Amino acid sequence: MDSGKVVENIYLLVIVTLISVLQNAFFAQKVERECNCQNTHTSAFERVSCANRNCMDAYPTFLAVMWCAGLCLSQAPAAFAGIIYLVVRQKYFVGYMGQTSQSTPGYLFGKRVIFFLFLMCVVGIFNFLLTRHYGSDYKEYVETITSASSALLLIP
Amino acid sequence: MDSGKVVENIYLLVIVTLISVLQNAFFAQKVERECNCQNTHTSAFERVSCANRNCMDAYPTFLAVMWCAGLCLSQAPAAFAGIIYLVVRQKYFVGYMGQTSQSTPGYLFGKRVIFFLFLMCVVGIFNFLLTRHYGSDYKEYVETITSASSALLLIP
Amino acid sequence: MDSGKVVENIYLLVIVTLISVLQNAFFAQKVERECNCQNTHTSAFERVSCANRNCMDAYPTFLAVMWCAGLCLSQAPAAFAGIIYLVVRQKYFVGYMGQTSQSTPGYLFGKRVIFFLFLMCVVGIFNFLLTRHYGSDYKEYVETITSASSALLLIP
Repeated sequence: MDSGKVVENIYLLVIVTLISVLQNAFFAQKVERECNCQNTHTSAFERVSCANRNCMDAYPTFLAVMWCAGLCLSQAPAAFAGIIYLVVRQKYFVGYMGQTSQSTPGYLFGKRVIFFLFLMCVVGIFNFLLTRHYGSDYKEYVETITSASSALLLIP
Repeated sequence: MDSGKVVENIYLLVIVTLISVLQNAFFAQKVERECNCQNTHTSAFERVSCANRNCMDAYPTFLAVMWCAGLCLSQAPAAFAGIIYLVVRQKYFVGYMGQTSQSTPGYLFGKRVIFFLFLMCVVGIFNFLLTRHYGSDYKEYVETITSASSALLLIP
Repeated sequence: MDSGKVVENIYLLVIVTLISVLQNAFFAQKVERECNCQNTHTSAFERVSCANRNCMDAYPTFLAVMWCAGLCLSQAPAAFAGIIYLVVRQKYFVGYMGQTSQSTPGYLFGKRVIFFLFLMCVVGIFNFLLTRHYGSDYKEYVETITSASSALLLIP
């Protein structure tokens, strides 16, 4: 596998993408904090439109993190986490539409999955830098641990 | 060409991306269904802002599908379909701004192009799995058929 | 490095992505022109939500341009420009929330950084086509010039 060579060509881009994801999380958390007092007495169109917009806002972040995690570390756990994220998003969307006057779910969802994928990217980059500068490659151990720990995402 | 090796490294990610595109289409169709009774008596700012938002909502989906189709199957038909999509989007945006009180165009646009690119991804993944498990490679036939059928997108 | 082979497989996709970025800029400029007369007397939630939406609208464009620039030309200047963009975005977001009744900042931000990354993509594609058809490779000169000129982004 020439996976190392791929990472060689993109690792700076991945790092910037990770920083931008952190910034997105910062923005989203600001919105989340202001969002509580809103969203009462809304029509069905506004609810579904709002749910769709929240999902779409988070979509590029999710795609970027999943692809980076898959390219930097290993694709099977990243794809599994992606599936979990899609299930969570489906539940979020349906839950958003379902309720009428109670407190709607917040702006954010799937935080744990995104965090897991983010961690995978960081570990992958870190492992690449270790390999490059010290020649020690822990990739196999890390991949095993990642595959095992991705099962933890199933815990609700 | 080591195109097969590239697909080897990303095919699970592509599959998850495809599922997420299906989910986006599901969300968008929900919004589309609620959207009809809205959008009357709007100012120019609201119209252009709404057109821009609808275009931006669909943009990551389009990028993801086009790149997956280009990487998994062949890039020329994918790029051609991408050009068609951009033309459709331009017409959508201009049409959205132009009208004042008649029924505005819906939330979705370019469904046919996205569907074509989606099909390209599925065929590419399917062909890769066939090659891997049975050793039979239909890629050349598929590429020829795809290039020919991409001309069908020109039909209005 | 097999960077040329990578570009061989994606250059049509990069070109379509660049055209779509131009189209996004056209849309955004339309919104910008209509946007001036709005946004007075808004609550904190509307301001932060609007700032977040503007940032999210531009996010896929930024990611696409940065990755294309990094893959087509060289990753260090692209990553550096990405960092600058993130700093600009942070300032934009904070500035948007800060003011109450004065004129809010416009819809667009980081135009210079996006333009620089866009130019990097164009130069990379152009150089690839030159190399392919005439056999002359200016990549090293171009990379040196790019690295040097990326420092110009630091000028406020």
